[in-house]
Amino acid sequence: MTPAVPPPPDATLESALYASDLAAAEAFYGGVIGLGIITRQPGRHVFFRVGASVLLVFDPEATRRPPGPGASLPVPPHGGDGAGHYCFAVPEAELDGWRDHLTRAGIAIEADFRWPGGARSLYVRDPAGNSVEFADPALWS
Amino acid sequence: MTPAVPPPPDATLESALYASDLAAAEAFYGGVIGLGIITRQPGRHVFFRVGASVLLVFDPEATRRPPGPGASLPVPPHGGDGAGHYCFAVPEAELDGWRDHLTRAGIAIEADFRWPGGARSLYVRDPAGNSVEFADPALWS
Repeated sequence: MTPAVPPPPDATLESALYASDLAAAEAFYGGVIGLGIITRQPGRHVFFRVGASVLLVFDPEATRRPPGPGASLPVPPHGGDGAGHYCFAVPEAELDGWRDHLTRAGIAIEADFRWPGGARSLYVRDPAGNSVEFADPALWS
Repeated sequence: MTPAVPPPPDATLESALYASDLAAAEAFYGGVIGLGIITRQPGRHVFFRVGASVLLVFDPEATRRPPGPGASLPVPPHGGDGAGHYCFAVPEAELDGWRDHLTRAGIAIEADFRWPGGARSLYVRDPAGNSVEFADPALWS
C-alpha cells in the first residue's frame, strides 16, 4: 500500500521578520500596531499574536547560532539580513483608519495604491526597514 | 474628537521567503508540499496559497530593485539574504504523515521534537536553505 500523501497545509502558523533592535520592534508591532505580545526573550526574539497566526521577530545574530550540544530544544538556526516583507489582512473599510493612525504615529506611508483587481495595499517600514503591508484580503480571494 | 485607533490586525495575509532559484522553490512548495500556485513571474516570484493566507517566494535580486519612475505599481523594494523561517500549521495527527512524506521525497528532517507545552514541531530546509517548520497549532493556543 502506498502511504497517503498528507493534504496540503491550509494555514500559516508563523511568519518571521528580523530586527537587531527588538525593543524598537516591540514598540512598533506591540505599541503602534497594537498586537498582543505572546513572549519575549531579550536579545533573541519577541513574538506577536495575529489572530490564529504568530509574527515572530528575531535578532538574526542570536538565531543564526546553532543550538549547542547541550541544548534542550534543537531549534534549527536561521536568520536573514536585508529588508523582509510581511502583510496584515485588514478589511478595506479600515485602511483609511490605519493610514491616519500610522501617520499620527509618525510612520511614513511609503505606498498606497490599488492593484489591477481593485484591492488596496498600504505600505510602511518597521524600525528595522522591513516592508510591512496592510492589505484588503480581497487581494488574494 | 480623537480619531479611533483601528483594532489590531487579526490575520496574516502574506508571509515572505527568499530564494534565488524559483524553479526549485516551486518544485518544493508546489510539488513536495502540494501548495496551490497562485501566480508566478519568472525571475521575480512565485506565490502559493496556504488557506486564507499566501506564501510569497521572491528572488531578492529582483525585489530589491526599486520600482522605476514609470512603474504602474509602486511596490516598495525588499529582499533578504540568509536563511528565513516560516511555519505551516499542521494538525498533530498529520505530523507523522508529513515526516514520512518528506523523507520519501528525499528531504532531510533537521529536527523533530516537542516543546515544553507538549506541541510537536518538525523542521526541514527548503532548497534555498530557509528553515521550514510544520507544527501543531496548539503550540501557540
